[in-house]
Amino acid sequence: MKIVIDAFGGDNSPEEIVEGAVLAVQKHKGLQIILTGDEEKIKNVLNGRTERIEISHAPDVISNDDVPTEAIRRKKESSLVRAFDLLKENDDIVALVSAGSTGAILTGAIMKIGRIKGVLRPALAPVLPTKTKDDVIIIDSGANIDCKPMNLYQFGLMGSAYYSIMYNMEAPKVGLLNIGVEEHKGTEMVRESYGLLKNAPLNFIGNVEAREALSGSVQVIVADGFAGNVLVKGCEGAVKTVMSILKTSIKSHFMSKIGALFMKKSFKELKNKIGGKQDEHGGSPFLGCKKIVMKNHGSSTRRNILASVDQAIILYENKLIEKIENAVSLEVGNE
Amino acid sequence: MKIVIDAFGGDNSPEEIVEGAVLAVQKHKGLQIILTGDEEKIKNVLNGRTERIEISHAPDVISNDDVPTEAIRRKKESSLVRAFDLLKENDDIVALVSAGSTGAILTGAIMKIGRIKGVLRPALAPVLPTKTKDDVIIIDSGANIDCKPMNLYQFGLMGSAYYSIMYNMEAPKVGLLNIGVEEHKGTEMVRESYGLLKNAPLNFIGNVEAREALSGSVQVIVADGFAGNVLVKGCEGAVKTVMSILKTSIKSHFMSKIGALFMKKSFKELKNKIGGKQDEHGGSPFLGCKKIVMKNHGSSTRRNILASVDQAIILYENKLIEKIENAVSLEVGNE
Repeated sequence: MKIVIDAFGGDNSPEEIVEGAVLAVQKHKGLQIILTGDEEKIKNVLNGRTERIEISHAPDVISNDDVPTEAIRRKKESSLVRAFDLLKENDDIVALVSAGSTGAILTGAIMKIGRIKGVLRPALAPVLPTKTKDDVIIIDSGANIDCKPMNLYQFGLMGSAYYSIMYNMEAPKVGLLNIGVEEHKGTEMVRESYGLLKNAPLNFIGNVEAREALSGSVQVIVADGFAGNVLVKGCEGAVKTVMSILKTSIKSHFMSKIGALFMKKSFKELKNKIGGKQDEHGGSPFLGCKKIVMKNHGSSTRRNILASVDQAIILYENKLIEKIENAVSLEVGNE
Repeated sequence: MKIVIDAFGGDNSPEEIVEGAVLAVQKHKGLQIILTGDEEKIKNVLNGRTERIEISHAPDVISNDDVPTEAIRRKKESSLVRAFDLLKENDDIVALVSAGSTGAILTGAIMKIGRIKGVLRPALAPVLPTKTKDDVIIIDSGANIDCKPMNLYQFGLMGSAYYSIMYNMEAPKVGLLNIGVEEHKGTEMVRESYGLLKNAPLNFIGNVEAREALSGSVQVIVADGFAGNVLVKGCEGAVKTVMSILKTSIKSHFMSKIGALFMKKSFKELKNKIGGKQDEHGGSPFLGCKKIVMKNHGSSTRRNILASVDQAIILYENKLIEKIENAVSLEVGNE
C-alpha cells in the first residue's frame, strides 16, 4: 500500500511532516510513502532513513496566500499539486495527506481526484470530544458554506459511513444542527433537510441544538459548512477560554496553586480528552472524493501526520469509498 | 417609573418571578411594578408585600407549546398579552420583563409594541463572558434566522448602542461572525454585510471567527440568528462539557479530590465568571422595539428577574430607544 504525503504543507514543514512519514513506515510494515517537495530539503531531514520512502521532487510551494483554484491550475511543480497528480495517476497510491492550505487541498481534491459518483459536494468532518466515551463529528465544517437540502442529506450518509468505520459502531446517531429540537424549527433549507434525513437509511434522531453537540447524545452532526464551522470553532474557543480563566485564577491564589499540583492527574486527563483529538485523529478526511484525502491542521506535528496515515489506512481497508458510493446511490426515500 | 412583569412566564413562575419583583421594588425606591397573571396566586406569594406592587388579573397562561402568533392574538387574558397591552397603552410603563416562551415574547413585542422607526428586524443580544474583563454580546442569537445584509448592518448599530450603555464604553469593537478573517470569506449575504458594516459609523474590526468569540478581542459580534444561536449555545455546551469531564476525573482520583478542596476559590471564580452572566444580566433585551422588552431565560430565578429590572432601568435612563432610532436613521454610508 502506498500513501503520498505533501512534505511542504503546514507550519512545521518539512521537518515534522518528514518525521511523521518516518514514524508511519516504522509502524506499518507493508506501507510505502512518497514525499512530494524539494528533494534536497527532504533528503536533509530524512538523513538516510529512506527505507520504503520515495521522494518526488516538486520545488514549488502553495501557501495560504495563494488563490486555491489558480494555485492548483498553475503551480504544477508544487508539492501539493504533485501529490494530487500522483494520487490520481497511480492505482496503488490509496491516500493523500497534507497539512497545507485548506482551500487548496479541497480544490485540488475536487479538480484532480473528483467526486464519488452521486456525491454532490464532498465535506469535511472533524472530530470533537464529548462528555462520554463517544466522540462526535461535525459534517460539514467549512468546505461548503452555501448548501442545499440534498447536500445535508448526503452529509448524513457520508458522516454515518465514516463514523461507523472509525469507531466500529453500526448505526451511529445522526442529528441535524438546528436552533431548536422541534421539527418546524430553522430555515427553509434546514427544514427541508430534516424531511430528507428523516427518511434516510440512517439512525436519525432529529434536530440537535448546539449546546448538545458535546453531550455524547449524538455521534454525527449534520450542518451546512457555515454553521458547522461556527460550532466547531466556537467549542474550541470556549474550551480555551475556560482553561485560560482557570489558569489565571490558579496563579493568583496560593491555595489554588497547591491544589493544582494535587490535581495534576485530572488536568492531564482533561487535556488529553479535550485537546487530544487532533493527535489521535491527525486530520479530517475530505469525505466524498474518489480517493482518501486527509486534510491535516496547519500546525500538525509528526504525531498528527502519523495519526492521519493511521486513519487513512483504516478508512481504505474498511472500504470507505465504496461504502459512501453505495449509500449515495440509493434514491432518496428508496431504502 | 413603572415596569410590568409577566408573573406567569418561566419554569419557576409565579414564585420566583414575584419574589424578583419584591427584590426590585426594595432596591429601586422610585420604582413601581405591575405583575400580570392570576391574582389569587400572585397574592399568595406576595403575602402582604404590596408596597409599590400592583396586580393586573389575567388568569390565562401562554406555554411553550402554544403557537406564538395564535397565542398572542387569541389568549387576550394571558399574563403575557396583558403585560404587552399595559406596556403599549401606558406611557409611564417603560419596560416589560418576561421569562415566558421566547417565540411568544418576540411575537408579542413586534405585534403589540412595534419596531422603532427605521428598524427592519429587532434582535436578541445575549451576553457571554470572555477571557478578559470585557463581556461580549452576540446579535442576533435566534430571533431572525433568515437575514439580509441590511439586517446585519442594523444589528451592528443596535448592538453597539446597547453595549455602549451597558458597559459605559464609547466605541465597542464590532466584528462580523465568519468562517475566516479575510474580507472575501463567507456566504454572499455575509460578504455583503461586511461591505455595509465597513462603512458604518461603528468601530468595525472586520470578520471574527467563532474561536475568537470569547477571547475578549471583540465586544459585539454580528451574525444572522441561526449562526448566532449556534455560537451562543455551542459555547454554553462546550463549557458544560469541560466542567463535567473535570468533575468526573476529580471524583475518580483521591489526590484530585484533595486538590479540588484547595482549589475551591478558583473554581468559584471560574463559576462566577462563566455562569454568572445570567445572574448578572438577567435577560436579553429585544433590541429594536419601541419600548424595552426583556426576555429572561425560562429557568430564571428571583435574582435573574431583579437583574433584568436593573438592566431595563439602566437602558431606559440612558435612552437606548432614542439612540437606536438615531443610529438607524442615518442612511448607509451617510455618516
